[in-house]
Amino acid sequence: MGFSFTVKHASQENRGRIGLLETFHSRIETPVFMPVGTQGTVKAMTVDDLRAIGFQLILGNTYHLYLRPGLDIVSEAGGLRRFANWPESLLTDSGGFQVFSLAKLNKVTEQGVNFRSHIDGSSHLFTPERVMEIEMGLGADIAMAFDICLPYPSNFQVAKEAMERTHRWAERCLKAHHRPDQVVFGIVQGVTYRELREESARTLASLGFPGYGIGGLSVGEPKPLMYEMLDYTVPLLPEEKPRYLMGVGSPDALWEGVARGIDMFDCVFPTRIARNGTALTSLGRVIVRDARYARDFSPLDPNCQCKTCTEYTRAYLRHLFKAGEILGAHLVTYHNLYFLKQVMEEIKLGLRTGTFEERKAEFFARCAN
Amino acid sequence: MGFSFTVKHASQENRGRIGLLETFHSRIETPVFMPVGTQGTVKAMTVDDLRAIGFQLILGNTYHLYLRPGLDIVSEAGGLRRFANWPESLLTDSGGFQVFSLAKLNKVTEQGVNFRSHIDGSSHLFTPERVMEIEMGLGADIAMAFDICLPYPSNFQVAKEAMERTHRWAERCLKAHHRPDQVVFGIVQGVTYRELREESARTLASLGFPGYGIGGLSVGEPKPLMYEMLDYTVPLLPEEKPRYLMGVGSPDALWEGVARGIDMFDCVFPTRIARNGTALTSLGRVIVRDARYARDFSPLDPNCQCKTCTEYTRAYLRHLFKAGEILGAHLVTYHNLYFLKQVMEEIKLGLRTGTFEERKAEFFARCAN
Repeated sequence: MGFSFTVKHASQENRGRIGLLETFHSRIETPVFMPVGTQGTVKAMTVDDLRAIGFQLILGNTYHLYLRPGLDIVSEAGGLRRFANWPESLLTDSGGFQVFSLAKLNKVTEQGVNFRSHIDGSSHLFTPERVMEIEMGLGADIAMAFDICLPYPSNFQVAKEAMERTHRWAERCLKAHHRPDQVVFGIVQGVTYRELREESARTLASLGFPGYGIGGLSVGEPKPLMYEMLDYTVPLLPEEKPRYLMGVGSPDALWEGVARGIDMFDCVFPTRIARNGTALTSLGRVIVRDARYARDFSPLDPNCQCKTCTEYTRAYLRHLFKAGEILGAHLVTYHNLYFLKQVMEEIKLGLRTGTFEERKAEFFARCAN
Repeated sequence: MGFSFTVKHASQENRGRIGLLETFHSRIETPVFMPVGTQGTVKAMTVDDLRAIGFQLILGNTYHLYLRPGLDIVSEAGGLRRFANWPESLLTDSGGFQVFSLAKLNKVTEQGVNFRSHIDGSSHLFTPERVMEIEMGLGADIAMAFDICLPYPSNFQVAKEAMERTHRWAERCLKAHHRPDQVVFGIVQGVTYRELREESARTLASLGFPGYGIGGLSVGEPKPLMYEMLDYTVPLLPEEKPRYLMGVGSPDALWEGVARGIDMFDCVFPTRIARNGTALTSLGRVIVRDARYARDFSPLDPNCQCKTCTEYTRAYLRHLFKAGEILGAHLVTYHNLYFLKQVMEEIKLGLRTGTFEERKAEFFARCAN
């Protein structure tokens, strides 16, 4: 299999579309939510669980895997898919977000970013060329270009310079990349400045990437502002290429993002809150530890068909969390990922049948997640 | 289904036997190892995992479940099997071990044991009658009688008095128990005194329990001394009743116990060391975190067919443990339980074909666990 993307159906109601993303290992219907496997595993899930829910594309974090277990080990294993026994498709981010958010003492020059590991303080240099080398070694189907991800808010001039550098780095990534069974996506930046977002989209579009990430959002700005940025950006990206809104994955944002033409999403949010005992349900969030569920022998989500909801009760889940049992984290993670998958199915049904806005309104009224 | 035990085959080589244990929910071939689900879940495992390995009988801890989530909640759920979605058979211990080992400030009188919860310091009284009430509420197939479990070493007079009290409590348990779909096993005590062990076995045998636990062993005494106690005890217990060596489950002890006529075992050992990153394998123990496995892309146990060994490498498992990922605990727990199940299959094959001693010698030579 090669890599391709085809728009199969475009909504009449909004910019939403249904597409077929063919990677080197799977045929994936879009819009799609990608669970995050930061350290080579989607936390508290097995590969069988992910496949049972129907996921065909997950994300690995270059920054984390580069530091631990290290590129050499993952390469020697035959890449991350083989290392982690994941037979479907994989996307790796570039570490651009993590070197700014997690690493210590990062220093940016035109060459790249010097940073210290958050694990052991060791010193490292990420350049566009080095990151491409690492991502080629990890061997995902889709590698993200190395970018500069600024915090919100950021000064206009700083944002402009970082964006311009991100564009130069995008070109260097394209030049350095040479793995035939992997594609590179460019990343649009520009913080929350319309002018910069538009320029970034145009510039990257002109570079002819096979797909585009929209980065630097969901970093603390108000959600309406994030959606506004999508309104400016998406129309300037090529119709026939997939668009990936990076780091976004709350149910409401899936609806809003798809309506604005987004095809791919990822976020640690559903798995992270799950380990904390918070479930996303069709009736809103459920804080599993809450004393009100001590004797609640009903399912976590009465409208859900996942194994957690068909086999276990809220009272049992609450007990597991109170007792600190790993099974609790597993069962709620399973549910949250299953729930997001179902939300996306509902979204696609809306797109397909011209009932998107209606279904969206119903969803927001019912489960103000 | 009712409750019965039938010896199907007796070894010519030793006291070992193959039996059929019918409970109210399963038909179980013995000798059998029971995974421990202390707080209503075998740690890091799902019910589906346990069934996939082939377990039909697991253990729940009365002390823990009584304290959290509490008897009322488990009863209201319809018992522990329903609460935890476990469709097969269940055994509950009596808390006799935990009130002495875990609880604070326990005080023993003829009536029972006063203790403070290790969770919140609250004060509780366990009497034989109260424990039967709790175990009836938990609703396992097999409930263990409430006993006094002394440390090793213990003074002879103290051991004798505790044993005599345990016998009186055993009678009180039988009298108080009245759940038709549950049986009560008596527990032999006597620390490491031959005279006491023999007296305890004879006394309990005369009370006509449908099965017998051998308790108060594996509490720090040398293993040969534990085996010696079995040599004294087992011949005095009725042939036609199952014998359960409580709290024992290392691979070597399974061989030694079965050879001495033990039919049932339980232990947290295989699951506890798994969460710590230690695997039981056909070639001895593997400390998964060990740096020597960083680039070892071979299975955890080359002779094992479990999902962990067929799908993942030592290098990946090591990475999971180094990175603190839950999946590591799950995969090694799965393997250790699968391994113990296979050891028991090998033991039964030895019993069946008159090759027990030969297989045992081969096992000990290969994997000095």
